[in-house]
Amino acid sequence: MASKYRNFRNSVPWLLLVLEAVFIILFYFFFSGVDVITSDFHTAFQDVSHMVIFGFGFFLSFLKRYGLSSIGFNLLIVVLGVQWSVLIEGFLFLSHSAKEDYLRRIIKAAVSVTAVVISFAAILGKANPVQLVVMTIMEIAAFHVSRWINNILQIADSATMMHVHLFGAYFGLAASCSFPALQPSSEKNADTPTSSLLSVLGTLFLWVFWPSFNSALAVEKKNGIIYSTYFALAVSAVTAFALSVLTTKDGKLSMAHIHRATLAGGVAVGYAADSIQYPWIAMILGLLATVIAILGSHFLQRSLPPAIKIRDVSGVHFTFGLPAVLGALAHLILYII
Amino acid sequence: MASKYRNFRNSVPWLLLVLEAVFIILFYFFFSGVDVITSDFHTAFQDVSHMVIFGFGFFLSFLKRYGLSSIGFNLLIVVLGVQWSVLIEGFLFLSHSAKEDYLRRIIKAAVSVTAVVISFAAILGKANPVQLVVMTIMEIAAFHVSRWINNILQIADSATMMHVHLFGAYFGLAASCSFPALQPSSEKNADTPTSSLLSVLGTLFLWVFWPSFNSALAVEKKNGIIYSTYFALAVSAVTAFALSVLTTKDGKLSMAHIHRATLAGGVAVGYAADSIQYPWIAMILGLLATVIAILGSHFLQRSLPPAIKIRDVSGVHFTFGLPAVLGALAHLILYII
Amino acid sequence: MASKYRNFRNSVPWLLLVLEAVFIILFYFFFSGVDVITSDFHTAFQDVSHMVIFGFGFFLSFLKRYGLSSIGFNLLIVVLGVQWSVLIEGFLFLSHSAKEDYLRRIIKAAVSVTAVVISFAAILGKANPVQLVVMTIMEIAAFHVSRWINNILQIADSATMMHVHLFGAYFGLAASCSFPALQPSSEKNADTPTSSLLSVLGTLFLWVFWPSFNSALAVEKKNGIIYSTYFALAVSAVTAFALSVLTTKDGKLSMAHIHRATLAGGVAVGYAADSIQYPWIAMILGLLATVIAILGSHFLQRSLPPAIKIRDVSGVHFTFGLPAVLGALAHLILYII
Repeated sequence: MASKYRNFRNSVPWLLLVLEAVFIILFYFFFSGVDVITSDFHTAFQDVSHMVIFGFGFFLSFLKRYGLSSIGFNLLIVVLGVQWSVLIEGFLFLSHSAKEDYLRRIIKAAVSVTAVVISFAAILGKANPVQLVVMTIMEIAAFHVSRWINNILQIADSATMMHVHLFGAYFGLAASCSFPALQPSSEKNADTPTSSLLSVLGTLFLWVFWPSFNSALAVEKKNGIIYSTYFALAVSAVTAFALSVLTTKDGKLSMAHIHRATLAGGVAVGYAADSIQYPWIAMILGLLATVIAILGSHFLQRSLPPAIKIRDVSGVHFTFGLPAVLGALAHLILYII
Repeated sequence: MASKYRNFRNSVPWLLLVLEAVFIILFYFFFSGVDVITSDFHTAFQDVSHMVIFGFGFFLSFLKRYGLSSIGFNLLIVVLGVQWSVLIEGFLFLSHSAKEDYLRRIIKAAVSVTAVVISFAAILGKANPVQLVVMTIMEIAAFHVSRWINNILQIADSATMMHVHLFGAYFGLAASCSFPALQPSSEKNADTPTSSLLSVLGTLFLWVFWPSFNSALAVEKKNGIIYSTYFALAVSAVTAFALSVLTTKDGKLSMAHIHRATLAGGVAVGYAADSIQYPWIAMILGLLATVIAILGSHFLQRSLPPAIKIRDVSGVHFTFGLPAVLGALAHLILYII
Repeated sequence: MASKYRNFRNSVPWLLLVLEAVFIILFYFFFSGVDVITSDFHTAFQDVSHMVIFGFGFFLSFLKRYGLSSIGFNLLIVVLGVQWSVLIEGFLFLSHSAKEDYLRRIIKAAVSVTAVVISFAAILGKANPVQLVVMTIMEIAAFHVSRWINNILQIADSATMMHVHLFGAYFGLAASCSFPALQPSSEKNADTPTSSLLSVLGTLFLWVFWPSFNSALAVEKKNGIIYSTYFALAVSAVTAFALSVLTTKDGKLSMAHIHRATLAGGVAVGYAADSIQYPWIAMILGLLATVIAILGSHFLQRSLPPAIKIRDVSGVHFTFGLPAVLGALAHLILYII
């Protein structure tokens, strides 16, 4: 164990310092002439920053041994990812948005980093710090290249940003296959009252800020997106309570269900939020997303062989993956109608 | 115990799912043609939502056995209550506010739900989930009918919204009479260091967001309401510290006092905030509200027979009831002058 | 011990009540004719208030025995300090800012109170409540007199406000010399998992709201200050992770380092934020500030005699003092260039 830490001591700090030096040099050469445009993104910036640091940091802290470190690593991923994301965004989309306000750039970067944090949730407790840093750099690059291809295909920019959940969930699941599965009885996988409390707090932070998150990059229809997201999340929460009591063995509330399913509505509505005109559409989406998240996890966990089901430590497939697929479908249907 | 949970399993989920289906159908029929009006309620919406979920959720978590579940039930009450409140508001006030922005509707609904959460505080640990859901539905309806009567009597809408604290406190105390009193020595009534910490956190969240809460629905004089509320809360906090040391037996700070009395100023100033012109009026109101909350609880707890004093689990009578009466009186006096 | 508490019981409440009465009387005579100017300071007000109550309250709760009380005393210091600061600001700068909006006054006062909270961090666990109240009153007065002298010397007001960190750190260190040093092995100095968690939370709250804090009083270039602060904090966090692993004996992350060094960049950039034009300058400042904070504490702790190094309980010298000196130097250099 000691030798393992000594290895990290030799590699992690230098990796971080070299990366940081490269970032500063790139910023020096490429971001020294940008016009600052005054715009009112302060509230959106603050809410997204709050949500990414607190919401995901706590959301991830449900494993006993990783409470404090998952909050720390979440911060590290976010600050590395935001810098790198601003740089790549600048390279790939320079001609489109050369005069974009820096606050808006940081908001975009913070939204993109969500993909990495969701992937991190899938490999929680398995990856070492070096692997996390490398994954952050690679995933952000891959995500922006996918956005760039989408842009060439003439898909709207705000829609491509909402691919983060889908991208993050399945990138994480793919990455988790390269790690050995944890033993189901492993002490590392256990949770404690304190860690449950923290992860519920994380869910609440995500819940409260999700409307701001979905609407952060919107220019028109901002209020519409906020209320659609709110109604979807509200119905999701009610449905999560109902289904959790129905599906647990003893009829008690399962905090893991609340933890995973109250957010499904927010994810699903993210894609379609600007084409939703009436609250009831958002509410039905929220209902369906939670049904998929809870029943999906309930039946799949039973039918899948143990070797596979353990891989997805935090259930990102059901929390972020499937609801995002549902949202994409809804977006398509609403677009055609 | 197991049979009790099995009962809930049979009733709670179906109650919630039927309610949710009814809500979606009502939204479909009555809210499919509303014009979206662009307005700047984002900050107020975010602050009120944050406060209702975090502030009251933690505020309620001071009983050992109910820490995590009171946070959960608070969320359930809020999301059910907000949907139901938007619907009733639409039915009762349709002619007045047919073109009201949805964000403003949600803010109004979130403020109304505060009444239910305060009532919940009074019956914490006594009611079962079915009773909580029924209470939410009934209390929201009763609150909006009371507002509707007030509107016919030509009382301003923003003033009627501030009845929430008064309404919630006394509705909750009335409801608590229908439950058997908990034994004073009951383990259910105990608190722990963690639960104290959480409830202090709740108080801080409520304290920080109270200025936004009081001013959320104001159109004019928004800044005036914010600073009046802030000064009232500041004086309340100082007075709570001073009186807490004076009235406890060993001269130590009582966290329960801080928990209950720092908010009294915010409640009291809520009614009168838009008729307060100078900070010193708000400061005197804050001082009086805390004196009433702490000394009232100190002397009444001694003189009342135990059977009655135990009913009010969270002291909502002193935290929300009496300060709201004081605020209503102050509003009247300032109105006459 | 009991007699000590009895002493506080005799003095603290009356001190607080007399102070509060004096404040109300002063507000009555001096603040009854101010015009309310409508301005948009709501978001800045809310963020600064949130940060000062939560950020510093938790930041201070890393000592086992002082978790809950440091959150409480932080609240007391803030509410007393804000009222007193608004009053002194009114006396000293009345001619300049007679028509200043109250929200802006409260923001200024909350920023000033930061100095007292930082000083409190230096004497945590040593001062009794009476000493804390007296220190609050004296330090706020001294800080505003120093600002007033700076104003006569024609230094811009927003720059003088940023002296808070420097002023608070060295006022606190000076004050701590008048208290006996705690024993290094003292149980009072110990921390626990819960207290570490709370103090890391405090760091995160401060980190998230620091951009709002630095830009709260700015009128022009608000966005520029926000993004400069964000980039400086981001680089600070990365550097803190790297250096923490390098300097601890076993190559593990030291939460104390993260706790202390992630904020150094925000402090350093505070002075110079409005003269920083490109992100890379802010990033280099963030890097240097964290290097100074961690390496400074690493080598000084070794070379200093134990009697001195124990005085600085919370490491305010390295977290707030040295980075502020760096920031002041950077401000000068950028001003000359």
